[in-house]
Amino acid sequence: MVPHLVPRWPAWLFRWRTACTPPCTPGASMQQRTWAGASRTPGLGSPRGAVGTSPLDRRGSSSTSSRAPEVMLTQERYPVQRLPFSTVAEEDLAAFERIIPGRVITDPEELEASNVDWLRTVRGCSKVLLRPRTTEEVSHILRYCHERNLAVNPQGGNTGMVGGSVPVFDEIILSTALMNQVISFHSVSGILVCQAGCILEELSQYVEERDFIMPLDLGAKGSCHIGGNVATNAGGLRFLRYGSLRGTVLGLEVVLADGSVLNCLTSLRKDNTGYDLKQLFIGSEGTLGVITAVSIFCPPKPRAVNVAFLGCPGFAEVLQTFSTCKGMLGEILSAFEFMDAECMQLVGHHLGLASPVQESPFYVLIETSGSRAGHDAEKLTSFLEQVLGSGLVTDGTLATDQRRIKMLWALRERITEALSRDGCVYKYDVSLPVERLYDLVSDLRARLGPQAKHVVGYGHLGDGNLHLNVTAEAFSASLLGALEPYVYEWTAGQRGSVSAEHGLGFKKRDVLSYSKPPAALQLMQQLKALLDPKGILNPYKTLPARA
Amino acid sequence: MVPHLVPRWPAWLFRWRTACTPPCTPGASMQQRTWAGASRTPGLGSPRGAVGTSPLDRRGSSSTSSRAPEVMLTQERYPVQRLPFSTVAEEDLAAFERIIPGRVITDPEELEASNVDWLRTVRGCSKVLLRPRTTEEVSHILRYCHERNLAVNPQGGNTGMVGGSVPVFDEIILSTALMNQVISFHSVSGILVCQAGCILEELSQYVEERDFIMPLDLGAKGSCHIGGNVATNAGGLRFLRYGSLRGTVLGLEVVLADGSVLNCLTSLRKDNTGYDLKQLFIGSEGTLGVITAVSIFCPPKPRAVNVAFLGCPGFAEVLQTFSTCKGMLGEILSAFEFMDAECMQLVGHHLGLASPVQESPFYVLIETSGSRAGHDAEKLTSFLEQVLGSGLVTDGTLATDQRRIKMLWALRERITEALSRDGCVYKYDVSLPVERLYDLVSDLRARLGPQAKHVVGYGHLGDGNLHLNVTAEAFSASLLGALEPYVYEWTAGQRGSVSAEHGLGFKKRDVLSYSKPPAALQLMQQLKALLDPKGILNPYKTLPARA
Repeated sequence: MVPHLVPRWPAWLFRWRTACTPPCTPGASMQQRTWAGASRTPGLGSPRGAVGTSPLDRRGSSSTSSRAPEVMLTQERYPVQRLPFSTVAEEDLAAFERIIPGRVITDPEELEASNVDWLRTVRGCSKVLLRPRTTEEVSHILRYCHERNLAVNPQGGNTGMVGGSVPVFDEIILSTALMNQVISFHSVSGILVCQAGCILEELSQYVEERDFIMPLDLGAKGSCHIGGNVATNAGGLRFLRYGSLRGTVLGLEVVLADGSVLNCLTSLRKDNTGYDLKQLFIGSEGTLGVITAVSIFCPPKPRAVNVAFLGCPGFAEVLQTFSTCKGMLGEILSAFEFMDAECMQLVGHHLGLASPVQESPFYVLIETSGSRAGHDAEKLTSFLEQVLGSGLVTDGTLATDQRRIKMLWALRERITEALSRDGCVYKYDVSLPVERLYDLVSDLRARLGPQAKHVVGYGHLGDGNLHLNVTAEAFSASLLGALEPYVYEWTAGQRGSVSAEHGLGFKKRDVLSYSKPPAALQLMQQLKALLDPKGILNPYKTLPARA
Repeated sequence: MVPHLVPRWPAWLFRWRTACTPPCTPGASMQQRTWAGASRTPGLGSPRGAVGTSPLDRRGSSSTSSRAPEVMLTQERYPVQRLPFSTVAEEDLAAFERIIPGRVITDPEELEASNVDWLRTVRGCSKVLLRPRTTEEVSHILRYCHERNLAVNPQGGNTGMVGGSVPVFDEIILSTALMNQVISFHSVSGILVCQAGCILEELSQYVEERDFIMPLDLGAKGSCHIGGNVATNAGGLRFLRYGSLRGTVLGLEVVLADGSVLNCLTSLRKDNTGYDLKQLFIGSEGTLGVITAVSIFCPPKPRAVNVAFLGCPGFAEVLQTFSTCKGMLGEILSAFEFMDAECMQLVGHHLGLASPVQESPFYVLIETSGSRAGHDAEKLTSFLEQVLGSGLVTDGTLATDQRRIKMLWALRERITEALSRDGCVYKYDVSLPVERLYDLVSDLRARLGPQAKHVVGYGHLGDGNLHLNVTAEAFSASLLGALEPYVYEWTAGQRGSVSAEHGLGFKKRDVLSYSKPPAALQLMQQLKALLDPKGILNPYKTLPARA
């Protein structure tokens, strides 16, 4: 059925392969693919130098050098007031013990990993972590907390970038880690139903053994939970091809703030019976309900995957390469990522990865996923001949086997890690009109001058999603003042989004108004009040503090 | 860039083409593609014999023969009580005239077309139709109506199947017909921003001239408005490939019940800043707000489109053909539709369309859309050889040019029209697990016996969406009693949806509970109360009447 399993690439396309092999070892590649695995034991394996920033940072009361072994308590670093929730008492712990015997964690050392985010920038002081196994247990816990006015911090893999997954004060941590069962998989339709605590990578393996793939893929796949992915509306590497979770998630089971269970866990591609309630919970970061199970549509596993890594002489050429690519690769295009020269320098300097192509101002990673290797090879060859012939691309290399594909992906995926080793990192994740995407980086580079060590831009160009990162030797309030609100105002000026895929969590909740009008903000507050009138679910997150 | 423009089909594949040509004239094909054009002037051109039914029908007070020239008033046919809204008075008309001078329609003849649905099954008695041109005008109108407690029926192309688009009593009809301007189109990203009253077919032409396509296509495209498509979360013929409007709609501008404008009209693929409010309005059938503008992602126009029409010996073979097709056609598959033998008999008998393949128990229409004609032809040829060789398919024909493609599509798309000519039609639109999809038709055929003239099944098999239709010489309460709640209970027993893509509107609002649990229903009512506390927006629709 697939007659051309051996792609017929021109020999010249492979010239850089050998140059790539030594630095990009498979082990290194694997390390990157599971970088967020560190978040399972924050403080042990997470990148030392990574520091997230927010507009709140500059209001912090002291230095926030990321190299300190101890992460400062959020309540000390940020000007945030505890809301009048009850405090967990002995009788509460006893009640929890009755609901989930043996799964009430109060040991401070065990709690540490769940109190601190993987970037080591925020830290709560929760005294108890609960590990339910079933929806019924989650329901009992929330009903109890609701009655007792106890605040709850739902937690999946704790791989978030904006401080949304850890407590700010002493909120009870409700972990989905033991809710990790596949409920059903339909081998014709590819519809997977599973508990919220299933790890994305394990689900990927599960469905790949059945000839399907998950519709999303992330660097954090080794740790992140599908429930957390849905709660944060995760984007990631397959968004360009398979779209948003708003389309691929078919059903959800959610426990509401008062403990009632909302079962919308259907497995139907089409269902127009009333309002689509599951959409309320996708992307609401655990502030409207706790997702306990997910029904998700998995696309068929592509039979051929190829990755091209190309050098471009300028950003205009990156954009033209993107347009050409969409036209010539069409339905097999599955990723279009870009990174600038400074990114390549950083992965080279800090991680020892060598560029597989000659030095260029910009690099592009293009992935194709198709059902017939020979056809895909022909399309890709035509495309590469076109972009090389027209000067849009000055150099390129191709990978068709899994090992080399991972090596090329590592160059793009390990930028986060390289940045974290470069010093104090100021991270921004914005959506912009694609033709203005890099102007923000250039403008900022000019604005900051020698204040910044590096100003880099990379990301999901195919989705209009820029990851803008600035590094410095140490935290500096004046540098932060030069960055914010400049970055947010610049983005708002282009009608962009100040959080493309990372969400708002704790650290970005006060910049929401740069991307949404007051009427929208008001309606969001009303929805929160409707679904969680006591405000016990993930407080201090997503929505700005009320005046 | 596309070297194989002439597909290399085996000659045998074309053998049935000539047989198809005489009956399926292009004119006939065009007629079908714009069948809902009749809805622009209901009572003049809409199919005479079409009668929608609902569980409410049997409670109707009199005969509901569809062949009567006059459509019975909804308030006389159905047991529905007018809610205590104000009645439009002279001073209200004067106020509207000040807001939209010259666009306040009160002439009964002009109003007739907007008071009756295109199926001619429900009829309101509105005395005024308003035709705003701008969002500001809609805002002024709603602010006024909200203050005066006047009920409002938002109306797009009035092509709905469930009585959602016409007034039930004397609600003011707020038409989007004059809000028909394209606001912007981005030629790199393919993002279209337009007013809600743009007709889908006109938008299709607009973007196709720019080398893109709309992500949805419907039989009603010649009349339906994009705002109505979004408000009803329309599915249609491209759903299998491009997914739900919940993924492709990027932004909305909505006027809320009190006249305030919610501007979420962004054009970003990714935006995780707070709750995704636009999702509340997609599929809420005008009951939560009036959509005034839409931002939508348009996929690139495929360079090659092919349609295969195949005969299958049984439904098991239809399912296996679908599985084989997904594997072998992969990323180029854009539609997988099916129809049973009775459907083919009806389009033959009533419309004079001849089958292009030999008589079979089932027929399948497969469409491919790809970027390289030669590759698509090779994939399709391999697939057809496989399914013909293995006996899954007993006969087939292929179309590669626009005219013949339309002829084959007409066989599937004109079933609705053929049914309407067959007598009184009882229509159901359900989602089911694909392997049980046809069992409902078989079970019902056995259950009804000679009571029914025809029991037919067809639809979007690729999406698990069955259109189940039963015809009889005339309306019969006993036949309806045999159909309902049987069909709904059968569907609920499979955890299916009692409305896959048509929505609930007026006629199906009381069957919502077959597909959604009480907790979901309660939350929907709360959302309605939050967004439209006076209940003035499209009353008597979507949600069941409160006890």
